Amino acid sequence: MKKAIYPGTFDPVTYGHIDIIKRAIEIFDSIVVTVAINTGKTPLFTTDERVEMLKECLKDFENVSIDSFDGLVVDHAHSVGAVSIIRGLRAVSDFEYEFQMALMNRKLAGDITTVFLMPHEKYTYLNSSIVRNLAGFRSDVSDFVPPNVKIAFDKKFK
Amino acid sequence: MKKAIYPGTFDPVTYGHIDIIKRAIEIFDSIVVTVAINTGKTPLFTTDERVEMLKECLKDFENVSIDSFDGLVVDHAHSVGAVSIIRGLRAVSDFEYEFQMALMNRKLAGDITTVFLMPHEKYTYLNSSIVRNLAGFRSDVSDFVPPNVKIAFDKKFK
Amino acid sequence: MKKAIYPGTFDPVTYGHIDIIKRAIEIFDSIVVTVAINTGKTPLFTTDERVEMLKECLKDFENVSIDSFDGLVVDHAHSVGAVSIIRGLRAVSDFEYEFQMALMNRKLAGDITTVFLMPHEKYTYLNSSIVRNLAGFRSDVSDFVPPNVKIAFDKKFK
Amino acid sequence: MKKAIYPGTFDPVTYGHIDIIKRAIEIFDSIVVTVAINTGKTPLFTTDERVEMLKECLKDFENVSIDSFDGLVVDHAHSVGAVSIIRGLRAVSDFEYEFQMALMNRKLAGDITTVFLMPHEKYTYLNSSIVRNLAGFRSDVSDFVPPNVKIAFDKKFK
Amino acid sequence: MKKAIYPGTFDPVTYGHIDIIKRAIEIFDSIVVTVAINTGKTPLFTTDERVEMLKECLKDFENVSIDSFDGLVVDHAHSVGAVSIIRGLRAVSDFEYEFQMALMNRKLAGDITTVFLMPHEKYTYLNSSIVRNLAGFRSDVSDFVPPNVKIAFDKKFK
Amino acid sequence: MKKAIYPGTFDPVTYGHIDIIKRAIEIFDSIVVTVAINTGKTPLFTTDERVEMLKECLKDFENVSIDSFDGLVVDHAHSVGAVSIIRGLRAVSDFEYEFQMALMNRKLAGDITTVFLMPHEKYTYLNSSIVRNLAGFRSDVSDFVPPNVKIAFDKKFK
Repeated sequence: MKKAIYPGTFDPVTYGHIDIIKRAIEIFDSIVVTVAINTGKTPLFTTDERVEMLKECLKDFENVSIDSFDGLVVDHAHSVGAVSIIRGLRAVSDFEYEFQMALMNRKLAGDITTVFLMPHEKYTYLNSSIVRNLAGFRSDVSDFVPPNVKIAFDKKFK
Repeated sequence: MKKAIYPGTFDPVTYGHIDIIKRAIEIFDSIVVTVAINTGKTPLFTTDERVEMLKECLKDFENVSIDSFDGLVVDHAHSVGAVSIIRGLRAVSDFEYEFQMALMNRKLAGDITTVFLMPHEKYTYLNSSIVRNLAGFRSDVSDFVPPNVKIAFDKKFK
Repeated sequence: MKKAIYPGTFDPVTYGHIDIIKRAIEIFDSIVVTVAINTGKTPLFTTDERVEMLKECLKDFENVSIDSFDGLVVDHAHSVGAVSIIRGLRAVSDFEYEFQMALMNRKLAGDITTVFLMPHEKYTYLNSSIVRNLAGFRSDVSDFVPPNVKIAFDKKFK
Repeated sequence: MKKAIYPGTFDPVTYGHIDIIKRAIEIFDSIVVTVAINTGKTPLFTTDERVEMLKECLKDFENVSIDSFDGLVVDHAHSVGAVSIIRGLRAVSDFEYEFQMALMNRKLAGDITTVFLMPHEKYTYLNSSIVRNLAGFRSDVSDFVPPNVKIAFDKKFK
Repeated sequence: MKKAIYPGTFDPVTYGHIDIIKRAIEIFDSIVVTVAINTGKTPLFTTDERVEMLKECLKDFENVSIDSFDGLVVDHAHSVGAVSIIRGLRAVSDFEYEFQMALMNRKLAGDITTVFLMPHEKYTYLNSSIVRNLAGFRSDVSDFVPPNVKIAFDKKFK
Repeated sequence: MKKAIYPGTFDPVTYGHIDIIKRAIEIFDSIVVTVAINTGKTPLFTTDERVEMLKECLKDFENVSIDSFDGLVVDHAHSVGAVSIIRGLRAVSDFEYEFQMALMNRKLAGDITTVFLMPHEKYTYLNSSIVRNLAGFRSDVSDFVPPNVKIAFDKKFK
């Protein structure tokens, strides 16, 4: 039973994240998708909203659960019994930040391995920040986020 | 039973590769370390020598086997029943090449997921080409490669 | 009649921007230099000030007009009848952000092509943020911005 | 009448190149696709074969002609009356090399502007070298190259 | 007598900075470690605290003094009689920002040479921001900062 | 007396190299410019020719000597009594390779510090390979290399 956590802000979850999760469940026996509560940035959606959106999008995925955490990601990995942290990599700029975090996490917790997965190239240009921007301008985001997230945007920006 | 392949030239295997393999066996149930036969470059060690060096270094690792392949890496993954290809990432220049290969492999075989692992930072500067160079100048390489590889170098450059 | 827009914050316009515009008018029949009103950052100069500075600097350029926009850049391109978005590229870090924006814009409006131009290497180190910084420390910025922009800085920081 | 040249090795032309050409003819009045004869590498296809493959693929494109050149690309641009050199950018590693070439070309011929276009993200992983590799392993390349190029590969590797 | 300045935010000093200083004193006759007062960001520690922490950590280093500055770094270099600015480089993202600053500083003061040194690879993942983050979560930071800095964190976050 | 070596292929020396040497002699008491004999590539100019060209270009520089070496650069640094290795950095792709070499050299010889200097931005696009290419096409290279190197090219390609 190999468990992994997939930590992130998920403000909100996009099809890029879901693509990574689909890949991850082919490798691990179970996945905990875990929403970072304090990231230094003010999120558009509350922790509860972000958790609820993920639960709705992922309700048909077996072996995937959702929670949230505050503190160090390696501590949360330990507390749920995960052996790995999953991160998506799309670009060089992702890579350098992720590289530093992975090395620091390895230093902090040598038993947790960071695993990098790459989303489909059609999600290369996709991140939550761009999608929030598009939604803020009332642009149609249905190609980028699941229907329930689109509805959440409509409420937020109505 | 999740199996992964770890393809490479391994000309020769270094402690950086072994660090990746140690990480990978925490995630997968079994690993096939697989030596690429034709890579367009003339290797210093023959395929047989490279396979033998890996077998010797990894003889105490459970759930790790060694073979070689010619052709597309995704075809070899299919033929051994692997769900993943493991690749080490050390630097941005690795990343871009690996990114292209991973996207191409995903296009060629959508059921095979490339998984990237990062070696310990002390192996950031280490690759087989630098080690071959050092050995060619009769510099001591025992911090970079296992003892049997050091002996193989000594024979090659005596 | 091929028209292009050159969107940016222009807070303020520098000789690097003007170098790009000189290049662009060799390629397109007309250029609209367009000031982004809302960019999430608080600009030093107001939209009106930025538009006026551009008008003054570019008054001798034929086939160049200046306006401002709020919303998606591709919508503005459509509204002025442009076939292209022009962006300057100076460095790898520019490249990745610009790459994501260009792919997203292609997705949002497939008929608009992003065209990248490279400023003269003497402007590699030049961006509006560095110039604002220098001006804030009362350093001489006359090598980096046109005379009317220098005067605007003098007023702002007197 | 703004003319541009699109220089390259085209060994062979792929759908990525054709995507760039489609973009370029929206911007320029005419395009010369020009095959580099001497590039320091031994091509798989002869200059004539590469020119013929391009002519066949592009026969339905208006305002596109094909030729070949030996020497400096800026000299060829001058000789055909082009104001621009078109280059595709897919990745950071492309970017740096292209950056150096564009600055050198600007130094050599200040009246020629290099214009960078980005292919569709589905061609991010695509280059002629990977396609030659796939074809060499008898893998199906029909998603990556036009039918006449596929036939040329079949002849080459039969 | 070749003097160099090593400017930075030092919020707080880490073992990575100290590694750079140890390297620099092998090259220069004296080093001024100089704390930037205004950097646009709100530091966790005051200028005085940052200077005091550096003085304590570096009290056994000969030919190293500590001060602070406000304004342009090249002006401060001139005022203390330095011929060089020392900067640490850990990653590609550092590199691009540092490249732009070094070129701008060369433009502003052609007699001052920026010198880049690389910290030991075990500090690749280390920066003040990550350490502040860890300390904020009450994680043990004694592998990353000297004992007096650890005590300062304990007071700050008690 | 702080001595540094500046190793390279210098095939041939360009104004970019000379710019680095001018910077270096402001920092070190003496510089040994040292031509790498075996680099795995076949140089255009012989070791003797490369040394002679450097001697001629640098004859008016005080405290600069020229030699050549075969083997590990850190061994050569030790043999001439140097405390530093000087390397020029122009681009991200330089950076990664140089980063690996500097870490390896630090591992091999902890008492030798690699120092990176940045050439003037007008030499960003300049390297020996591009200059050889231009000279091979009989293009004028007098903006890129000193007169004696231009003459050497003329002889080589007459």
